[in-house]
Amino acid sequence: MIHPLAILSETETNLARDVVREAHPDTVIDFREIFLQEPPKAQLMEFLMVEHAGRLSPTTPRPPRWALCQYDVIGSDRIPQFHESIVDVVNSKRVKHTVVGKQHHASLTLSEFDVLVDRCMSSELFQAALAEFRLPDGFEVVIEPWPYGGLDDTDENRRYFQGLCFARDTRSGNPDSNFYSYPLPVIPVMDAHTQTIIRVDRPATGGKGDGLAAQTFQADIIGHCKPSEYVPELLPEGTRQDLKPLNVVQPDGPSFKVTDESLVEWQRWRFRVAFNPREGATIHDVWYDGRSVMHRLAISEMTVPYADPRPPFHRKQAFDFGDGGGGNMANNLSLGCDCLGVIKYFDAVITQADGTAQKLPNAICLHEQDNGIGWKHSNWRTGRAVVTRHRELVIQFIITLANYEYIFAYKFDQSGGITVESRATGILNVVNIDAGKTSEYGNVVSGGVLAQNHQHIFCVRMDPAIDGTNNSVMVEESHPVPMNAATNPHGNLYQVNKKTVDQATFIDAAPHLNRTIKMINPHKLNPISGNPVGYKFIPLATQLLLADPKSVQARRAQFAQHHVWVTKHRDGELYAGGRYTLQSQHEVEGVADAARRGDRVSDTDVVIWNTFGITHNPRVEDWPVMPVEIFQLMIRPADFFTANPSIDVPSSRNGSSRLVDSECCQKARI
Amino acid sequence: MIHPLAILSETETNLARDVVREAHPDTVIDFREIFLQEPPKAQLMEFLMVEHAGRLSPTTPRPPRWALCQYDVIGSDRIPQFHESIVDVVNSKRVKHTVVGKQHHASLTLSEFDVLVDRCMSSELFQAALAEFRLPDGFEVVIEPWPYGGLDDTDENRRYFQGLCFARDTRSGNPDSNFYSYPLPVIPVMDAHTQTIIRVDRPATGGKGDGLAAQTFQADIIGHCKPSEYVPELLPEGTRQDLKPLNVVQPDGPSFKVTDESLVEWQRWRFRVAFNPREGATIHDVWYDGRSVMHRLAISEMTVPYADPRPPFHRKQAFDFGDGGGGNMANNLSLGCDCLGVIKYFDAVITQADGTAQKLPNAICLHEQDNGIGWKHSNWRTGRAVVTRHRELVIQFIITLANYEYIFAYKFDQSGGITVESRATGILNVVNIDAGKTSEYGNVVSGGVLAQNHQHIFCVRMDPAIDGTNNSVMVEESHPVPMNAATNPHGNLYQVNKKTVDQATFIDAAPHLNRTIKMINPHKLNPISGNPVGYKFIPLATQLLLADPKSVQARRAQFAQHHVWVTKHRDGELYAGGRYTLQSQHEVEGVADAARRGDRVSDTDVVIWNTFGITHNPRVEDWPVMPVEIFQLMIRPADFFTANPSIDVPSSRNGSSRLVDSECCQKARI
Repeated sequence: MIHPLAILSETETNLARDVVREAHPDTVIDFREIFLQEPPKAQLMEFLMVEHAGRLSPTTPRPPRWALCQYDVIGSDRIPQFHESIVDVVNSKRVKHTVVGKQHHASLTLSEFDVLVDRCMSSELFQAALAEFRLPDGFEVVIEPWPYGGLDDTDENRRYFQGLCFARDTRSGNPDSNFYSYPLPVIPVMDAHTQTIIRVDRPATGGKGDGLAAQTFQADIIGHCKPSEYVPELLPEGTRQDLKPLNVVQPDGPSFKVTDESLVEWQRWRFRVAFNPREGATIHDVWYDGRSVMHRLAISEMTVPYADPRPPFHRKQAFDFGDGGGGNMANNLSLGCDCLGVIKYFDAVITQADGTAQKLPNAICLHEQDNGIGWKHSNWRTGRAVVTRHRELVIQFIITLANYEYIFAYKFDQSGGITVESRATGILNVVNIDAGKTSEYGNVVSGGVLAQNHQHIFCVRMDPAIDGTNNSVMVEESHPVPMNAATNPHGNLYQVNKKTVDQATFIDAAPHLNRTIKMINPHKLNPISGNPVGYKFIPLATQLLLADPKSVQARRAQFAQHHVWVTKHRDGELYAGGRYTLQSQHEVEGVADAARRGDRVSDTDVVIWNTFGITHNPRVEDWPVMPVEIFQLMIRPADFFTANPSIDVPSSRNGSSRLVDSECCQKARI
Repeated sequence: MIHPLAILSETETNLARDVVREAHPDTVIDFREIFLQEPPKAQLMEFLMVEHAGRLSPTTPRPPRWALCQYDVIGSDRIPQFHESIVDVVNSKRVKHTVVGKQHHASLTLSEFDVLVDRCMSSELFQAALAEFRLPDGFEVVIEPWPYGGLDDTDENRRYFQGLCFARDTRSGNPDSNFYSYPLPVIPVMDAHTQTIIRVDRPATGGKGDGLAAQTFQADIIGHCKPSEYVPELLPEGTRQDLKPLNVVQPDGPSFKVTDESLVEWQRWRFRVAFNPREGATIHDVWYDGRSVMHRLAISEMTVPYADPRPPFHRKQAFDFGDGGGGNMANNLSLGCDCLGVIKYFDAVITQADGTAQKLPNAICLHEQDNGIGWKHSNWRTGRAVVTRHRELVIQFIITLANYEYIFAYKFDQSGGITVESRATGILNVVNIDAGKTSEYGNVVSGGVLAQNHQHIFCVRMDPAIDGTNNSVMVEESHPVPMNAATNPHGNLYQVNKKTVDQATFIDAAPHLNRTIKMINPHKLNPISGNPVGYKFIPLATQLLLADPKSVQARRAQFAQHHVWVTKHRDGELYAGGRYTLQSQHEVEGVADAARRGDRVSDTDVVIWNTFGITHNPRVEDWPVMPVEIFQLMIRPADFFTANPSIDVPSSRNGSSRLVDSECCQKARI
């Protein structure tokens, strides 16, 4: 039988599609997503308790198996109405139906992108705008569809898309010639309801001192741009020849086991891997050596606001998980490219516009890796060194959002640690700048190419289960203490303050206080230290959202304005930036709203959210493809165990390591 | 011929020893260190310019080859006098001689540690103190020699050592049975001049509410302590059996080349590796593709102050590089343990008490490693993904300081980045605590074992050479801009401010401003962006020294009170915490003094120092050996190159990666 946390299968997805279709006879339906509506936590926990007790049987009561279906119903006026239905796929019946308010928009689908490209090509308005440019022979226009961003106050609340435009040099015959190095200053805007290009915005191409709106471009619009290729066969000098292979070989196979489709066991860890079109890979029901640690762990949202104030660039703000779906954009991973060693791939399922399931092969990869020394001690008296390697188990998925990619990984280690890693790479989003100019809004990274300043702000949602569901959050800080005869005669004391968070709230990073967030079980004390058992993390003090709090960018990304949020669990409350982010003007039902309820959060089912990111003022080195920038949220046991859990990792010598031979290491010849 | 930056050979060391001995006839000399006094930078640069021009010949003028010799001359009063001589080892002659003031102490040597242990054993005072305890049969006392820390105002300025005491269970017959789990509350203090135990300090063993000085211990002093073994053969349940081998195999050998003993070439990088007994491995004359990047890079100092206010614990403050020498304490590394793959080891040379050179085999290891994806882009139109691996070249050394170890690595990558990594591991320094008590000064990590709160604060010294010696430091910050019609109509703008540092000073981390430190060449503009070419780092906003600024701990560790220091280069000014840290009461000639000179630092030979660290409030999981805590200073090109330098890294598929087979991944059976 299917586990309650298993992703919705293709069969289940198609069944849900049919139920929805039957519920809306004689109507055109545009499906957005069909994916697992995770069971109510209370029911899920009942099942999991039976499972962990080893008492599962075919008669064990099971939580409902639900499909969340999001779709537009297209009326005769062609104005779609956004519906959500929950379908019980065991009993083939709809159990809930909501018509979502018109102020919200369903997430975008790639078929809408196709429509935008198609309508641009046939739009007289757009073609007239293009005609102002004189493209060299062999160049063709490429339209990069984008969400519209936050609505301006002057915009009617319809569904829009914008197209960022580039030119592609077709003369090589290589379809992967990099068009981003030829930006065109036209932005067609489509009304998705009428599927017509309603406007072509004309962004400025000026530089310092040119003001916000001045139109300064020349007809020879890409005459000052240069090729910037990245596919190997187009590199003028090819690829380097002096890099020798480095192989990861696991002669006895991996140390992990995957059973029941999604259950991963490795080095006393046991958890489930799932996937949905919005969050991508998610981690569930994490236990270590028979004790529960985390109920659910996921990347909840990210936003990428751009800081160029020249209209319409203020509308460049993506919510990459809410707008289009981090899972929908997941890459099909390839053996030997995205990780090394012995690899297990997980397939996923996404939904086509007609509601039919589509397999997404190799959407997640799972592998082990070596991360240097794990622990070491040398006894200088005896000369005996004991050293272990730091082995990690990595669950990775990679998403492509037009120009950018993000590589997300959940890493489990032998010391009881969990690391959530995000790597930003891919191609900068760029615009045209007049020849010879520079800009205070970004950096010129190639001839005629301005990479605008922007931020990438991520939010990770943690639903802890530290030895059970009822947990508290404790803030621990280290404070200096003035020298005084009574308590600090020599001035070396510092004081560790601990405070439990009572009410739902936000907390900012405070590295000068070593502010540490602990998720604890207040009812279970560590038998050694007497402290409550827990896990901790130190929130990275990365820069928060810089946009003016009154701006649309800021109003729709409240989650990005504090580092840590503490809320009380509610079923379905998963999305930091709100349930519906596409074209939002405010964050609605996001984490800020959840915190604002002010629920009691001590000794209860608490949820912790961590926001971190990068202020990305581009470097020339980020062009044409950006080397990874790496961020790590390190979740570590803090008095959860009674000793270092990796103390029994073998310290045996790796037999395959070799000394260099003499060829590569010679004496000098002078 | 020997390169001017090559470490002092055994022959050269012994020659310097002889010259010093001849200069002090009929005198007893205790040698501390003999190591390369790097040539004056002006002369070194002349040589390096000829070298880089490919014009070296046997007649090229060479900078002097100097040995710095530090030693005590023992007079008839047995009070040693601390001398420093510089010996020209080509011409066998002393070129400089200084008698160091009595306020300074030469760094400690391991032979002094041996003396402490020996004198304790024969000290009636110490034996009388021990007699108050009733140790179980089979336990023997272990003395862990330590520097004395900062002098108290009541101490006469003599040379002291303290011994932290433990008991070792000898019953297993295993000499590596972990004695740290049986701490004894006695601290013998030795006057190193008279070699006598002058005092036995009696630290408190109380807990919360017991005050600073109360003596509460029982004669059965370790009756409440438990074994905490880490050597595999003593683990009660042995080592885990389910970890399968993970091998790094490089069938065609490494991609690096080491010639001329110390010259490393890899993926367009070219630099020299050296070593000295104080800083351990150092990196010199770093070039990338024919352009200079960094003149010298080293870990300059670290301090570990403990925060337990009960005397004499305030004296627990190590300066691990200045007190005993990071290089002196370097491990002999072992194949297959400290790194994987194809490894080149470098030997080093240290000095024995009689001045004779001693080879330190395998003090540094050099290898390549894979660090995940380097860059990736998928063209969603064509489905074509280009993905490269992030290969790094690692220069690693590991030091053991009594209980703790630190793993230091300089990592070079294909994207032009340099990462200085520090991993803290080893065994916590612990003291006895009465049965059943807990403490606000630390955490109980094992029965009767209190791990005191402390900090580890590191300082990395960077002498940049961004396309030449004359560089400037620029501070770049990203600031919000209030929404306003003229410059920020939609509120999305943020402003990037850049300011050149004019005068030597300190700068603190400011993550809320994304404060970034850039080392630039003001005379060379990037042809693409128009910005000065440079390298940058974002100072980690780790907590600075917490001790009261008036405390001895703080006065002697001024470097630990700001994140970044900017100074003007002076020959020999290498040590952040001052030249002589052992038993110091103030930081003398440290980086704070250098900054206080207020030299002009723009467009000149500027030096940048970065302080970072960890406030370590121990977890039970840090016991008995602590899993690595990892810190990384990421030095990255910032408009130094005209594109991503790793764009030509091959994206070929790794042929040795494998899919999991069906055995480890089965369907569910329920």
